[in-house]
Amino acid sequence: MSGSTFGKNFSVTTWGESHGKALGVVVDGCPAGIPLCEEDIQKDLDRRKPGQSFFSTPRKEDDKVNILSGVFEGKTTGTPISLVIFNCDQRSKDYSRIAGVFRPGHADYTYHQKYGIYDYRGGGRASGRETAARVAAGAIAKKILSQFGIQIQAYTLSIGHIKIDPGNFDSSAIYDNPLAMPDRKAAKKAEEYIQQLKEKGDSAGGVVECIVKGLPGGVGEPVFEKLDAVLGKAILSIGAVKGIEFGRGFEAAYITGSQNNDPFAYNQSNELVKKTNNSGGISGGISEGFPIVFRAAFKPTPSIRIPQQTVTREMQNMDLSLKGRHDPVIVPRAVVVVEAMTAITLVDYLFQRILSRIDLIKKALS
Amino acid sequence: MSGSTFGKNFSVTTWGESHGKALGVVVDGCPAGIPLCEEDIQKDLDRRKPGQSFFSTPRKEDDKVNILSGVFEGKTTGTPISLVIFNCDQRSKDYSRIAGVFRPGHADYTYHQKYGIYDYRGGGRASGRETAARVAAGAIAKKILSQFGIQIQAYTLSIGHIKIDPGNFDSSAIYDNPLAMPDRKAAKKAEEYIQQLKEKGDSAGGVVECIVKGLPGGVGEPVFEKLDAVLGKAILSIGAVKGIEFGRGFEAAYITGSQNNDPFAYNQSNELVKKTNNSGGISGGISEGFPIVFRAAFKPTPSIRIPQQTVTREMQNMDLSLKGRHDPVIVPRAVVVVEAMTAITLVDYLFQRILSRIDLIKKALS
Amino acid sequence: MSGSTFGKNFSVTTWGESHGKALGVVVDGCPAGIPLCEEDIQKDLDRRKPGQSFFSTPRKEDDKVNILSGVFEGKTTGTPISLVIFNCDQRSKDYSRIAGVFRPGHADYTYHQKYGIYDYRGGGRASGRETAARVAAGAIAKKILSQFGIQIQAYTLSIGHIKIDPGNFDSSAIYDNPLAMPDRKAAKKAEEYIQQLKEKGDSAGGVVECIVKGLPGGVGEPVFEKLDAVLGKAILSIGAVKGIEFGRGFEAAYITGSQNNDPFAYNQSNELVKKTNNSGGISGGISEGFPIVFRAAFKPTPSIRIPQQTVTREMQNMDLSLKGRHDPVIVPRAVVVVEAMTAITLVDYLFQRILSRIDLIKKALS
Amino acid sequence: MSGSTFGKNFSVTTWGESHGKALGVVVDGCPAGIPLCEEDIQKDLDRRKPGQSFFSTPRKEDDKVNILSGVFEGKTTGTPISLVIFNCDQRSKDYSRIAGVFRPGHADYTYHQKYGIYDYRGGGRASGRETAARVAAGAIAKKILSQFGIQIQAYTLSIGHIKIDPGNFDSSAIYDNPLAMPDRKAAKKAEEYIQQLKEKGDSAGGVVECIVKGLPGGVGEPVFEKLDAVLGKAILSIGAVKGIEFGRGFEAAYITGSQNNDPFAYNQSNELVKKTNNSGGISGGISEGFPIVFRAAFKPTPSIRIPQQTVTREMQNMDLSLKGRHDPVIVPRAVVVVEAMTAITLVDYLFQRILSRIDLIKKALS
Repeated sequence: MSGSTFGKNFSVTTWGESHGKALGVVVDGCPAGIPLCEEDIQKDLDRRKPGQSFFSTPRKEDDKVNILSGVFEGKTTGTPISLVIFNCDQRSKDYSRIAGVFRPGHADYTYHQKYGIYDYRGGGRASGRETAARVAAGAIAKKILSQFGIQIQAYTLSIGHIKIDPGNFDSSAIYDNPLAMPDRKAAKKAEEYIQQLKEKGDSAGGVVECIVKGLPGGVGEPVFEKLDAVLGKAILSIGAVKGIEFGRGFEAAYITGSQNNDPFAYNQSNELVKKTNNSGGISGGISEGFPIVFRAAFKPTPSIRIPQQTVTREMQNMDLSLKGRHDPVIVPRAVVVVEAMTAITLVDYLFQRILSRIDLIKKALS
Repeated sequence: MSGSTFGKNFSVTTWGESHGKALGVVVDGCPAGIPLCEEDIQKDLDRRKPGQSFFSTPRKEDDKVNILSGVFEGKTTGTPISLVIFNCDQRSKDYSRIAGVFRPGHADYTYHQKYGIYDYRGGGRASGRETAARVAAGAIAKKILSQFGIQIQAYTLSIGHIKIDPGNFDSSAIYDNPLAMPDRKAAKKAEEYIQQLKEKGDSAGGVVECIVKGLPGGVGEPVFEKLDAVLGKAILSIGAVKGIEFGRGFEAAYITGSQNNDPFAYNQSNELVKKTNNSGGISGGISEGFPIVFRAAFKPTPSIRIPQQTVTREMQNMDLSLKGRHDPVIVPRAVVVVEAMTAITLVDYLFQRILSRIDLIKKALS
Repeated sequence: MSGSTFGKNFSVTTWGESHGKALGVVVDGCPAGIPLCEEDIQKDLDRRKPGQSFFSTPRKEDDKVNILSGVFEGKTTGTPISLVIFNCDQRSKDYSRIAGVFRPGHADYTYHQKYGIYDYRGGGRASGRETAARVAAGAIAKKILSQFGIQIQAYTLSIGHIKIDPGNFDSSAIYDNPLAMPDRKAAKKAEEYIQQLKEKGDSAGGVVECIVKGLPGGVGEPVFEKLDAVLGKAILSIGAVKGIEFGRGFEAAYITGSQNNDPFAYNQSNELVKKTNNSGGISGGISEGFPIVFRAAFKPTPSIRIPQQTVTREMQNMDLSLKGRHDPVIVPRAVVVVEAMTAITLVDYLFQRILSRIDLIKKALS
Repeated sequence: MSGSTFGKNFSVTTWGESHGKALGVVVDGCPAGIPLCEEDIQKDLDRRKPGQSFFSTPRKEDDKVNILSGVFEGKTTGTPISLVIFNCDQRSKDYSRIAGVFRPGHADYTYHQKYGIYDYRGGGRASGRETAARVAAGAIAKKILSQFGIQIQAYTLSIGHIKIDPGNFDSSAIYDNPLAMPDRKAAKKAEEYIQQLKEKGDSAGGVVECIVKGLPGGVGEPVFEKLDAVLGKAILSIGAVKGIEFGRGFEAAYITGSQNNDPFAYNQSNELVKKTNNSGGISGGISEGFPIVFRAAFKPTPSIRIPQQTVTREMQNMDLSLKGRHDPVIVPRAVVVVEAMTAITLVDYLFQRILSRIDLIKKALS
């Protein structure tokens, strides 16, 4: 079954396994006339690529992107854009000894059940490496959104129990600490925490928060393609995500209507304002024109050195201690993936918004 | 833009406004040969219909379903099944005085932004009443799943801060208390809490938990149509849902890999078992063959009698005190909606699973 | 499997059987802000409805349409528009004696093979009656297209060997002869021909030609959603259509490049003109801004009184002479169905055109 | 807008321009467990590749395919299969002098209208070269179909007015004459005809006929996804196709019901047989279990040396004589493209057939 395409009008098809020859993405439905070069895409890939710090796998991949189609004389032509990244540092033999083992927390067992056959090397298609293709497509989506003044910023909100302090929020810090935390103090603590876990052969999870600014109201297509529903799908499709919440999120279930409703008011400049943003910028599945806010929970990296009880395909019980190259925490590298999936979704629904009103359609075609 | 269809092969298209003539759903892609009558559908609609207790709106609707097509001599024929529910007790004039008012926590403002025009009576298309069509389609989906031994059970896990005690879990209680809580003691407390809120003119939210048993492994289509991603979309598309989490969910972000991984083992009968189910029954976006577990957070009903600050379309600030017929808590009536969306999603992906393996395809066509 | 939805952004879902309670359509993705009432739709349904002349089945159906949702205060709201037509004059018992017979030229045999079960009364879902729902949706599509100055006109080009004479072309004649031929003389001859066939208990086929004027250039989405490809699918999905050709069509296969290419030129007003329109207004799957021209071949009505050899489900050979109420020729009633499917397709791709260019998108959203 | 994906469950996304770096396709939804290697694909590509005879363009391309993902240890894994063909012999400068010219019969003008920008080199995305990606995907589809005993054979039925004589039909001849005609005598005459045209700088069109054997009954999804409708779309999406007809096709419009209906009978072995196949093997949009037969009309190659009147983007009238490397007739190379699109379509709907019946679904999942 085909599950590797995302999006309706702006549509993204990814392919590739962790230890195959290459991985890539076809972006179809990108409008013509947008300046685009490999550097636009590379800079986001570089934020995700492995081997950059103590906190990520030492696998060395340049993740160098090639544009194979859809761009002519520096601009998109409206035809599909094919992007390819060749794999370099596979070391597949690291995996031969676990060929028949179902690693706990990994998808080995379910891929085996589903397909009967799977590329076990480095997780195959279920590897986090698959997200490189998403990030490449996301960079194109971001370029489009930037033309409409729409900005997406994700960051690490917490790692284990170490959470940023809103009082210390500093968005520049996101890019200058390897954990992508907008609070240098919290980042410091989290680094120590991970170091301890790494020594023990254990791993950490965390929460990524994402904020979208500049998105106009009216984006989202009730009743099944509500903006929160489609963003939810986009984010939950990232491996390791176990939950998502918008605005006040799960907390909203514990408070009352009078506490949770966001009162509207016109301010002195006659602009409509909200005093709170408990809704996270979405009402009835449609953007309000206020910032979109959501959080995604990432489980800890399942690959750990600590011995675990597990089984083999050949029906043996065994103890497993993983020795490969693994991230002690995946959250910081996932930040740009969250941004990418958000951007891909928003482009699609921003465009769809035009088609909901005959006046906008007429304006476009006049 | 068309956002009212859900599903790829088993596809559900809903229509209708709260105070229009009728609402309904077309179920396309239902396989031929399934016994189906109106009673099969009515029993789930009756679980959702309003006016049944102190805790729901006094609006009186029979929610009587009519099958207009797709069933012949008591069986589905493989052609689209059209279901219609006529509205009876609209009392639209209740709404005329709020025609130009943007109610806080409602979608009036975003529908206005998006479409320029909207049916404000009773929330129009954004009304919870829209979910009746989902429940009707869901009843068909459940009937299909039951043929494969798959059972879905949702219930109220908490209302406000009152949570069920797992020690008191009693699944029969779900159907005999109006709050659909599987713990009679917690239900009692929650009833009192809501009564207090109702007197103040306020409202409560809550959490619904859903458990799927009997689903085989191998269901879900990586990488974008992962089972948790599509269930997430399905559930987040229900109005008032602000978050969803699978298995250990947000908690997983706070613990370590060695705590979160579910160890595998073969038991004495040589069956593969898991000692924990932190994954919620889904790994790599594919069902494991163990129970699926997820929770959805519902915000408190936005319609409250307590005065709120808001604005009108004509750009006036005002104070609003809502006097219509409202649910002080929407959660109990949403339980069957959660089941419905889960069922609709599972049928689609259960079927798709067949198409992932040439051996299953050959078996079917032989 | 779900095959009853047509269209991506402007999407049409039909349902209903010939002798069921009702048939209908849900139009999702209709932009908000378009004036719409039942009369707009009824006038096209009246062109298709049965019992209007000697040349169509005497079954009496008012085909009265009800709008059940999606329109508020006389305008579309952007939410799904549900249209229902209740059946009145079913006389299903006419069909009881052929319950197990596979009528030649009909879909009884293939529905039986596919579904194992089917509603045999009046052809069930395979009946021409199903097209009433398409015509209803098509009327909405035409209303949208008319706002952009786009006009669709279909007519009977030939019945059996009787073809219109281009020299006599009179578009007003289409509406004042029961065969919808734009040539009164040809229509007269065709009437006589059908009368003869009817007396013998036989039937005729014919060709419908369709011309679209006012469609701007740039409509159609290569490489698989080319305008001719999607129009082809739309038209071939009408029961009884056995072929379609665009512009010069099959003739183009017999001539040379120098004969078939349409030379371009700027005329004295500096407008780009074509001296011929062999392409039928589509190049590379994209509209040129010149008239779209295509023709569809309709087979003769399969229901005939002349005895035919056939078989029963119970594996008996038999001779069959059909006695029900049938059209001796289906072509004239199909003219408005061709227009409807053309309109539904064009709305979808006209809107999609906006999304192919960043400048049009910016114009719409500015 | 995204128009480069074809298919619902077995889905094919092509990309690439004639003179870009490469072209390719992602095949998603290919079931796991099918043996597949590059040679399986190469042999069909070799049938299409240019430079093989006097009758095709002298452009030299190996069209060597690379499988970049989705195959592991010689078998498909159910994950997307990415195929790439690198371009070698582009000679793009041949095209620089026509950069601003709208070639008659080509898509230059419509691409310009649609996108504002296009890669004019060798037709860019509108080039026949794009079909190499379709052929590659089609080879995978054929491999799947062969497992079910389904065979597709297309051939040149006519070139210009030279048509094969059914009396001389010899299917082996298809592969041993460069025109792919199953009649060596007709092929000889056609060769002479093309030689004459080539000398004059003109070109020919023709008709391709396609026959599918072994397809079971019950394939096709009414009412919009009828088998003839979706095959029609598939074939009409091939550049240069101007018409398609099934079975008796356009001729059916000229005969009577008693002539056109295919009588059914049980033969002495109690098998259901048809005495004629005017329907082309499809009734009501569903396969009958008898051979599928259709014909597609290809227009003559638009690139001709004979001077033609045309215009430039800069609004100049001009005379154009094309000097590049062109096929004097495209039909023979299109034969395998017709097979490919047929195969891709059939796999998708063969699989969907399973999902129409609960008994088949149960069989697969039991």
